[in-house]
Order: sequence, then structure tokens, then C-alpha cells
Amino acid sequence: MSRSVRIAVAQYEPHVGDVAGNHVSAVTWARHAAAAEVGLLVLPELASSGYVFASDAEASASAEDARTGGVVAALTEVCASADMYCVVGLNERDGELRHNSAILIGPLGHIATYRKLHLFNDEKSWFEPGGELPVVDLPFGRVGMVICYDLWFPEAVRTLALAGAEVIAVPTNWVASFRRKLHDDAGNCMGGIVAMASASQNGVVMACADRVGVEREVRFLGASVIVGSDGWPVAGPASAEEEVLLVADVDLDGVAAARHRTPRNNLLEDRRPDSYNAVVVPPPRPAGAVPTATAP
Amino acid sequence: MSRSVRIAVAQYEPHVGDVAGNHVSAVTWARHAAAAEVGLLVLPELASSGYVFASDAEASASAEDARTGGVVAALTEVCASADMYCVVGLNERDGELRHNSAILIGPLGHIATYRKLHLFNDEKSWFEPGGELPVVDLPFGRVGMVICYDLWFPEAVRTLALAGAEVIAVPTNWVASFRRKLHDDAGNCMGGIVAMASASQNGVVMACADRVGVEREVRFLGASVIVGSDGWPVAGPASAEEEVLLVADVDLDGVAAARHRTPRNNLLEDRRPDSYNAVVVPPPRPAGAVPTATAP
Repeated sequence: MSRSVRIAVAQYEPHVGDVAGNHVSAVTWARHAAAAEVGLLVLPELASSGYVFASDAEASASAEDARTGGVVAALTEVCASADMYCVVGLNERDGELRHNSAILIGPLGHIATYRKLHLFNDEKSWFEPGGELPVVDLPFGRVGMVICYDLWFPEAVRTLALAGAEVIAVPTNWVASFRRKLHDDAGNCMGGIVAMASASQNGVVMACADRVGVEREVRFLGASVIVGSDGWPVAGPASAEEEVLLVADVDLDGVAAARHRTPRNNLLEDRRPDSYNAVVVPPPRPAGAVPTATAP
Repeated sequence: MSRSVRIAVAQYEPHVGDVAGNHVSAVTWARHAAAAEVGLLVLPELASSGYVFASDAEASASAEDARTGGVVAALTEVCASADMYCVVGLNERDGELRHNSAILIGPLGHIATYRKLHLFNDEKSWFEPGGELPVVDLPFGRVGMVICYDLWFPEAVRTLALAGAEVIAVPTNWVASFRRKLHDDAGNCMGGIVAMASASQNGVVMACADRVGVEREVRFLGASVIVGSDGWPVAGPASAEEEVLLVADVDLDGVAAARHRTPRNNLLEDRRPDSYNAVVVPPPRPAGAVPTATAP
């Protein structure tokens, strides 16, 4: 009997400053996923609030509690009606603090909160970083979460994989940056490339829900993608600009096969933690030359 | 004044059992690179010996000393004549042991030996794994080395980047494996995808020299690639089957820019080593349900 789960990622355009509209959008995409009999849906980073805040007051005005906030309550209703799980990016209020969080919601409501560990650019003005990486056993398998810039820290996905995560939900807001190009010929942006590598290096499924559109001159890259545990996309990359729901049936028994790449290899057990030490080898010096420090 | 270096990777076909022919091939490609005024050349994994050994006797017969062996001596001559540096994959003999090694050679000869940390499949029969990751300051910048399957352990490139490496030389023998496909529409194999991600995550240049051809029914994937510090290829991917020298002029001042991605971010300094801890969140349970273990 193989373990299979239908995964979806929703790529759409939240709007900064329009919390009510963002709630409606999140629920609308969740209903699309429910109609497609999806088991796990991923929505973008900061789907509740939009991304490019102009002030602390604006960031504060759209913050919500992870357990009682409106978008979590609304998504819980959809999850309950459809026996679905959902990860949504939340501008999370926690007392006086705010976090850039991913909330895992199920038919019974809030399950887990992941607070982004690595804050990008102005996020450092609006949010406090988190301090740990939750994993949760859902009926189909073990799920972890990272958010956007976290992908550039392979330590995060590695930590989740070592803790048994089979599926990594990735709410993201990939942005145009200094790079020479934004998408390759296949339509992947660099975030998707990094997600493919992360899947291949760890034998995990990566479900990346990006947003589209422009906020205050910041362009988002779309290119949402669901990556199989062999590192190749099973759905997407989506377009750079259009709203879309990507859906893929993922075989989670493939995770063990992907890790156990040959009869003699296992991606997690082959690690050499005691040997990840660099040694600086002195540069070559012509015969007869002496180090400057000891020259007469 | 910008620091620039011309990097080349040679993709060709060594032949198992033909040490003399492999030495000639290595020198021939080194001369091509020298004629192109290359500063750093990378040759494939086990370029001296070929890859698919049939027996321990065959593996032993083609092993060479890292300092006095024939291929190192021959490449030293080319490096000396052209003021070039070269990394070659060597079946290294070290007393009774053998290692799957990458040897950094300069105009004065042997500079550093990196012994592959993560052995793939039958390599575990022929080689002992190494125990550290050397970095060397060459005139143009700091260089580190990894080999093939090492790329699936992001700990290795991360360790080198944290030790200041700007260029990672990657002798490799990427093989067809369990994956659903071998190359994407752009011609990258999964090894190239992982190299692109590694470059992007660490702000390093990745110079991957793969081999082509078939040995004892093992097909190699070509697709050699030189990746810039922004994660996108600057040369390649090469074809899956043809022999070719890829050459690119690489700006090493771009490394600092790639790491310092925004005025408020740095890929190496933004790490959160104290927070790479997974916590298992209990799965949701309906109200009134009790854990099985305590049920009457």
C-alpha cells in the first residue's frame, strides 16, 4: 500500500493594506483546493497582510493572532468541511511582538506555528525572528515548514529532514534581486532551483507557494513549484505573473527511496559531521623563498 | 581594481584501465586551457584512472601518489609553462590506502589534496573517505574542492564558504540514477541544479567538470557547468555526450556582493546555528479523544 497525498500550492496576489480582501482571497483559493480534493494546501508568505509595509503602524494594523485571528478561523472552516490541511503565511501578532510565520491548520484548527528564522531586508524592521523548526505528523506523513529566504540556509531543511520531515511547505514571496536574470528557460526562478536542490539533497517533497504582482515597486517572481523527492518538479514552475493553483499527487513512499539512493547510500546517514572542518593550506612558495615575517 | 580569473572545466572521457591514455588526455586538455590563458582549470573526478572498477586489483593498478604520481608531474609541467592552476581527480595511493581525491596543482607542483568525504555506491569498496576540507589562497582568490556526491551534503560547501572559499572546484562523475529524468530543458542534470543552488546559497563560484561516455553500462551525464556567485551558469551546461572545454571569466569581487545581498543581509552572517532545532508538535486530536495508551 503506497502512501500518497494530493498537494496544492496557490499562487496569487495578496494586497498590502487590504486584510479583509486578503482573507477572502485565502479562503477562495482554499475552496478551489478543497474542490480538487487536496490533502495539503500551501498559501504564500504573508498571505494575510501583503509584504511591503511602509511603516510599523501598517505592519501592526494587519497583524493577527495565530490561533484566534480571522484568516486562521476562516481557513479552519474550509479545512473542516473538506478534511484538508493548509499552511498559510501570517503576519503574526504575539503580544508586543510580530513574526513572519507559517501556520499549519487542519480540520480542528491551528496545529503548529513556524516563525521565520532568517529575516530578509526590511523584514528586520517589522518582525522578530523565530527560534525553532516544528514538524508535525499528519495522517499522510510528517510535515515541516520554511519561508522564502530560509531556503538559502540549507541548515533549515536539513534539520527538518533529519527530524523525519517528508514534505516541506514553503510559503514564499520571492523577489527580484541583484541577479543577472530572474527566470531560466524552464521558468524557474532561483528560489525554485534552490528548492529542487533541497529536495534532491534531502529526499523531501518541497511545496513552494509564491505570490505574483508588484507592491510599492517590489516585483514578485511567481514560478511556484511542487518538487518531488528526486529533485525534479512534479507541478510547475508556474508562470511569473498569473494566478494559478498547482496540484500534484505525491507518493511519499518515494521519500525513502530517494534517500536510499543506492543499496549502499543514504542521504541522511552518509553525512560526516565530524569532518566538516576546513583547513587552510599555505599557498605555494618558490624554493628558496622565505616567509616575509622571518625575512632579514 | 576588480579581481577576475579565467576558469575552465574540461568535459571528456577517461577510460578505466588505460592510465597512460588518461594521462595523455589530462595533459591535452590542460594544454588547451593553457592556450586559452586560463587561470584555473578543473578536470573530472578520477580523471587519472576512470571510474567503474571491476575489482580491487584494477583499482589498485591505477592508483598514484598525490605528489609523485605521473599525472600530477605531467600537469605540473603544463601549469609551470602557463602560470596556471589545475584541479584533477586522482585515484590516490597513500600507503596501503586509496582515496578518491582532488589534487590542486600549480606551477610549482602539488599544493593540496582533498579526499572525498562522501563515497558513492561501489566507491565504498575501493576507497577510504577523507576527513577534512582544505582551502588554499591562490593569487586570484581562495579555492576549495568537493567531489560529485559531496554536493548532496550542503554542509561541505557551507564549511568551505565559511572558511573564506570564493571558488569551489568540483571534479565529478555524475551518473544516471533513479531519477525520473536525467536533464532538464536547459540541459542541466540534477548535479548542476545542486551546484547552482550551492552557489546561490553561499555566494561562491562553482566550477563543475563532469565526464561523458559509458563504462561497464554506467552512463555519465556530461552537463558540466561553471556557475557564478549569483547562482546562474556563466558557462554551460555542456552537452550530455560531447567533449568540450568550457571557459568563463569570473569576477571574484562579485562574491562579496552576492553574499551581501541587501544592505541588511549577508548569507553567511545571517545563519542561526542556535536555532536549527526541530521540535515535534503532537498531531491534532479531536476534543474528548484520549491518547490510545491511556484508553481504558
